[in-house]
Amino acid sequence: MSIKIACGQMEVVAGRPDFNTKKVLQLISQAKNEEVDIILFPELAVPGYLVGDLWEQTAFLEDCKTFGQQIIAATEGITVIFGNVAIDRKRNNKDGHIRKYNAAFTAQNGKLISTEQGLDFVAKTLLPTYRMFDDSRYFESQEMLLKDKRVSLKNGMGSVAVTIRGCEYKLGILLCEDSWTENYPLSVPSMLKQGGAQILCNLSCSPFTLKKNSKRHLVFGKQAKELQLPLIYCNSTGIQNTGKNIYAFDGQSCVYGPDGMVKAAASMFEEKLLTFSLDKESAKIRAYSAEDELISTEDDETAILYKAIRYGTEHFLKQTGIKRMVLGASGGIDSAVTATLFTDILGPHQVLLVNMPSRYNSELTKNLAQQLAENLGCCYTIVPINDSVAHTVEQLYTPIHNYTTNRDFKVELNGLMYENIQARDRGSRLLAGFSAAFRGGISCNANKAEITVGYGTFYGDLIGLFCPLGDLWKHQVYRLGKYINEYVYKRKVIPELIFTIRPSAELSEEQTVGKGGDPLIYTYHDYLLRAFVENWEKASPAEILKHYIEQDLEAFLGCKEGLVSLLFPSHAAFCQDLEHWYNVFTGLAVAKRIQAPPVLSLSPRAFGTDYREAQLTTYYSLEYKEMKDKLLVQERLF
Amino acid sequence: MSIKIACGQMEVVAGRPDFNTKKVLQLISQAKNEEVDIILFPELAVPGYLVGDLWEQTAFLEDCKTFGQQIIAATEGITVIFGNVAIDRKRNNKDGHIRKYNAAFTAQNGKLISTEQGLDFVAKTLLPTYRMFDDSRYFESQEMLLKDKRVSLKNGMGSVAVTIRGCEYKLGILLCEDSWTENYPLSVPSMLKQGGAQILCNLSCSPFTLKKNSKRHLVFGKQAKELQLPLIYCNSTGIQNTGKNIYAFDGQSCVYGPDGMVKAAASMFEEKLLTFSLDKESAKIRAYSAEDELISTEDDETAILYKAIRYGTEHFLKQTGIKRMVLGASGGIDSAVTATLFTDILGPHQVLLVNMPSRYNSELTKNLAQQLAENLGCCYTIVPINDSVAHTVEQLYTPIHNYTTNRDFKVELNGLMYENIQARDRGSRLLAGFSAAFRGGISCNANKAEITVGYGTFYGDLIGLFCPLGDLWKHQVYRLGKYINEYVYKRKVIPELIFTIRPSAELSEEQTVGKGGDPLIYTYHDYLLRAFVENWEKASPAEILKHYIEQDLEAFLGCKEGLVSLLFPSHAAFCQDLEHWYNVFTGLAVAKRIQAPPVLSLSPRAFGTDYREAQLTTYYSLEYKEMKDKLLVQERLF
Repeated sequence: MSIKIACGQMEVVAGRPDFNTKKVLQLISQAKNEEVDIILFPELAVPGYLVGDLWEQTAFLEDCKTFGQQIIAATEGITVIFGNVAIDRKRNNKDGHIRKYNAAFTAQNGKLISTEQGLDFVAKTLLPTYRMFDDSRYFESQEMLLKDKRVSLKNGMGSVAVTIRGCEYKLGILLCEDSWTENYPLSVPSMLKQGGAQILCNLSCSPFTLKKNSKRHLVFGKQAKELQLPLIYCNSTGIQNTGKNIYAFDGQSCVYGPDGMVKAAASMFEEKLLTFSLDKESAKIRAYSAEDELISTEDDETAILYKAIRYGTEHFLKQTGIKRMVLGASGGIDSAVTATLFTDILGPHQVLLVNMPSRYNSELTKNLAQQLAENLGCCYTIVPINDSVAHTVEQLYTPIHNYTTNRDFKVELNGLMYENIQARDRGSRLLAGFSAAFRGGISCNANKAEITVGYGTFYGDLIGLFCPLGDLWKHQVYRLGKYINEYVYKRKVIPELIFTIRPSAELSEEQTVGKGGDPLIYTYHDYLLRAFVENWEKASPAEILKHYIEQDLEAFLGCKEGLVSLLFPSHAAFCQDLEHWYNVFTGLAVAKRIQAPPVLSLSPRAFGTDYREAQLTTYYSLEYKEMKDKLLVQERLF
Repeated sequence: MSIKIACGQMEVVAGRPDFNTKKVLQLISQAKNEEVDIILFPELAVPGYLVGDLWEQTAFLEDCKTFGQQIIAATEGITVIFGNVAIDRKRNNKDGHIRKYNAAFTAQNGKLISTEQGLDFVAKTLLPTYRMFDDSRYFESQEMLLKDKRVSLKNGMGSVAVTIRGCEYKLGILLCEDSWTENYPLSVPSMLKQGGAQILCNLSCSPFTLKKNSKRHLVFGKQAKELQLPLIYCNSTGIQNTGKNIYAFDGQSCVYGPDGMVKAAASMFEEKLLTFSLDKESAKIRAYSAEDELISTEDDETAILYKAIRYGTEHFLKQTGIKRMVLGASGGIDSAVTATLFTDILGPHQVLLVNMPSRYNSELTKNLAQQLAENLGCCYTIVPINDSVAHTVEQLYTPIHNYTTNRDFKVELNGLMYENIQARDRGSRLLAGFSAAFRGGISCNANKAEITVGYGTFYGDLIGLFCPLGDLWKHQVYRLGKYINEYVYKRKVIPELIFTIRPSAELSEEQTVGKGGDPLIYTYHDYLLRAFVENWEKASPAEILKHYIEQDLEAFLGCKEGLVSLLFPSHAAFCQDLEHWYNVFTGLAVAKRIQAPPVLSLSPRAFGTDYREAQLTTYYSLEYKEMKDKLLVQERLF
C-alpha cells in the first residue's frame, strides 16, 4: 500500500504564532484536498525559532500552546507532525525559567498521538549551541524529558506509531540538529531505527549557509542509506534574525530514499506543499510533480548567493515595513551592487542614490555614480559636502574654556580626522536626513573585508538599516556585480569601469582614483581575513606565519599562488602586514562592529551573534613571537 | 593544627594569559612570604572568562596551557588552586571544536595533584547558559569528562586530597555556578561532601549585579551550614565584556564557617590577598587582618552603585586606552551625572563638555550646563547648531532627479525629521569631531528608560564609546546625582535646579523647558518598563493589564501607590499608554539597541548579550486582547 506524504514548506514568522498557525491551517486544508495522508511542518513552526529572550515571556508561551491546540483540532482525516514549543509549568529549566522543549507534536483525527513511551511529544535531543544557535539557553533536551520520566535515552527513542487506512507506520521523528550526527557522542537516527522507526521525519528550521545544502545531501543521504530508511526533511522558508544577523531560510525540503538518493525536492526559498507517495513494502518513493524531482544544484555559487541575498533582503524589508531605500553612491563597486539589488527588489522609483562629492572626488567616479542611476532609472541627487565640512572644521576650532586654569585653548585637526568628518557628514547628516524625508531605509554598503578591519567610519559609512553585502568578501562582491549585469538585468547596468578602477575612499589628496586606493589588497587580504573569521578552528597569526614559513600559505588561505612573495619583499614586511591587520581586526574594528548595522548572513560565520566577540586587547601567542624572532634574525643575518 | 589559607583576589584581564599569569605568580610569591599553605585563584584566572569566540583559536588555548604549567612549576612549598581552560585535543566538543573544560587545577611542590578519580583537574559541572553566560557554547562539563572515563557523576565528585605538614585535607573544589544549587537537578556541594570533602573551595568569575552579594551570602551561608563545612569563595576583580555589555567584577572573596557566617572577607573591587587561618579539628576560622572581618553591607544601594559604575568605567577606559572624554552637556540630569563621573575618574582637564544650543534651548538649561562645567572645573565650549541645521535642511531640499520619469522632485520635512537632524548634528557632526580632535571618547548619556523605548536619535544622542548610565532607570540617575553631590564632591557640583526642572529634549517649540518635557512619566514608566525587561519571567502586556484590573499594579511594579489612577482617566487611556510603550519597546527601539554603544551592566538584566533580542513585529497575546476588549466594552457601557 502506498501513502501520500507532504512537506508543508512554509514561511515561518518568528514571534508570530497567530500568522504561523493560520498558514499551517491553510496548508493542512490544501493537503486534505490533495488527499495527503501525512503532512510535516518545520521545527518551531508555531512560535518561530530566533525570537531571542521572548522565550522568557509566559504569555507568549501560553499562546503557542493554544495555537498548537487549534492545529491538533484541525487534523480530522489527516496526520500532522508540527514543530512547537512544549512547556511544562510544573518544572523549571536549569536557569529557573519555565521548562521548555523544542518539540514535535503528532496529531490525527483531532487528537495527539503519543510516543511509544506515552509522551505527548518528541523533544529535540541535540541542542546546538554554536554559531547563532542558543538552543541550550532556552530548551531542555529529550534526555532531560526522559530522565524526569525515569526512562533512559536508549529506551526512550521509540517512534510514534500512526495508523493510516488500517496500516501502521512507525515514524522516527527528529528535530534538525538530531540528524547532524558528526560530532555528537550519540546518533539519534540510529537510536530511532533501533527503536523500530520505519520512516525518519526531520523537522528543521535551518538557515541558508553557502554550501550547506550539498553538505546536507551528503550527511542525510548517507544516513538514509546506512539505516535503509526513507528520510523526510521539512525545512522552513522566510527570514528570521538574532538582532545582529539576518538569516534567510531556504526550505529545500526533500525526501531521501533508502538508497540515499533524493526522490523529491521543493525549490529554494519558496512556500510549497511538496507531495510524494511512499510505498511501505517496496519503499518506493515517487514525486507527484515533475519539477519536484529536481534537486537544486549549487554549481553556480554566485547565482545561489544572489538568490539568497535578494530573498533575504526582500523579506527583511517587508518585515520591517520598509518600501524605499536610500544609498550613498560613490561610483564604487559596493554601492553599485547594492543599488542594483534594491532596484531589483523595490523598483527604481523607490531607490534614491545620493552622490555627495567633496573636493577629493574625481569626475570619473561622479560620472560613474550618475551613469549607474541613469542605467537603473533610479532617483538621483548630488549634494556636495564642501561647505558643511568647512563649517564643521571651523566650529571645531571654537575656543574651549578650561574652567580650572581659566584659559582658552583650541583643538588641532589632522588628516584622518578630516577624512572622518567627511564620512560622517555624508552618512549621519545627509543620508540619514534623506532617509527620513524620502521615507526609506539607509543601506550600509560595507563588505566583509572592510567590516573585519574596521575600514569605515563610525557614524559615517557604517550607518544603515542593514548591510546586505556585509557577509561577502570583496572578490565575491565583484563576482556578484558581474552576475547581476549578465543574468539579472541582462545589460551593463553597472558600468564596466566600476569593475576596473582601483577601489578608493577618495577622502584625501593621496586617496583618490588614479592616485591611490584602499590599503587592503583584496586578492590577498580577503583570504587572510577569512581564515581569521570563518575557519572552524580560527586561524591565528601563529598559524599564518607557520604556513608562510612552510611556503604553503596561499594553498592554506585559498588565494592565488605566487601572490605572497610578490606582495612582500621581506619576512619583516610580511610580519608587519600580518600584525597590522590582526591589530585592527582585534582592536578598533571590534568596537565598530558592536555598533554596526545587522548583516545579512550567508557565510559559515558572520559577524554578530554568529561570531561573538568581546573588546579585548590584541594578543600574540608565544609561538608566534618565537617564530617571528627566529625568522627576522635569520633575515638580518643574510 | 591550623593552616593558613589565602584567596588571591586579582584583576583578571580577559584574553591575556600573559598578564594574568604574571599576577598569579606575584601573588604566589607574596603568599609564600606570608607563609600561606593554600592559595586559591579565581575561575579561569589564566585566560579570563568573557573572551567570546576566541575560545575557537587553538594558539590561544595552547598558550593558556603553557602558562598553566608555569604556575604549576611555581608551587614549591605551597598548594595552589587556580582556574584555567583545560583542553583535550583527542576529543571534540559537541560542535566539533577542540574539547574544552572550565577547570580548576591543584598543584603543590611543582606538581599537579590529581583528583581521587585520577583526573588532572576538576571541571565545572553546571554550565550557566543564561543572561550573558554562554558556558555551554564553549565548555563540556564534569559529567562529560567522567562519562569519557566511564565514571558516573555520583562516583566522580570526589575531592582533591592535599597534605600539608603531614596532615591530609580533602578539598571539594567547585567552579562558580556549581554552588548556585537552586534550580539544578543535582547539588554539587552535597555530592562533594558525600565524596569526603572537608573544605569547599569555590573559584568564581562572577560579575557585579545589584543585590547579588546579599543573595550569595544567603545561598552560600546556608550551604556551608547545612553541610557543616567551611566554604571558601574566591572571586576576581577587574572588568570583562561581551561586546555589548561591560561587567565589573567585584571580588568580595570570603570564607563561610560551618555555622554559615562570614569569617573573613575582602573588600569590593580591590586586588587583595585575603588570608585567614583554619583549624581542622575545631573548624575555627580566623581572619588575619581586622578589616577583613567586615562584610561589605549593601545598605546603601546608591553608594554601591556609584562604586560599581566608577570602578567599571575607570577600568574600561584604562583597557581601551582612553584618557579623555567628550560629552554633550544639555543642562539635564543624565549628562550632569555622567560629567561628574568622568571628572571624578579622569580629572577636570580631561573632560570636555560641549553645549550645542539650537533656537529651542532655553537660557535656563544653557546656564545650567555652563554652571556644571564651572563647578567641575572642566573644559567647556558652546557651539551653536542653528546654521548647520539650516544648511542641512536647505541641502535636503535639493531637487532629486527621477531617471525613469525624467522629472525632478523634492522631499518634504516634518517636525520629527527636523528634531532628529538637530540630534544628529550634535552627535555625529560636532561631538564625534571633538572626540577625535580632543582625543577623547564620546560618552553616551542615555539612561535605561530611554534605551528601552528608543527615546533617542540614531547617530544622534545614541552614539558613544559606551554608555555608563545605560543600565539605570531615570529615578536611579536622580538618586545617583544626589549621592554624587553629597558624598563624592561634598558640594553641589550638580546645580540644584537640574534635579527639579522637568526633563526635556528641547528639540521643538512644544518640547522646551517650561512648556513641555519628555513623553515618559518616569515615576510610572521606569517601573512599567523594568517589568518588561528585568523580571525573571518577563512581564507581558497581558500580565500588566491583569494587575491593572485587579488593582494591584503599583505593588506589582513597585511604583508609588495611587499613581495609576492619577495618570489614566480611563481604561482606554491606560491601554493606549501601555500599547504605545510596548510597541516602541518591541519595535524601533530594538533596531536602535542593535547599533547602540556598550552598556555598563549593573541590573539583573541589561540590554545586549544579557537580554538577547531579535527584530520582531510586536505581538499581543490572545489573553491580552480578550481582557482589553471586555474592559473597554464595560467602560463604554457605563
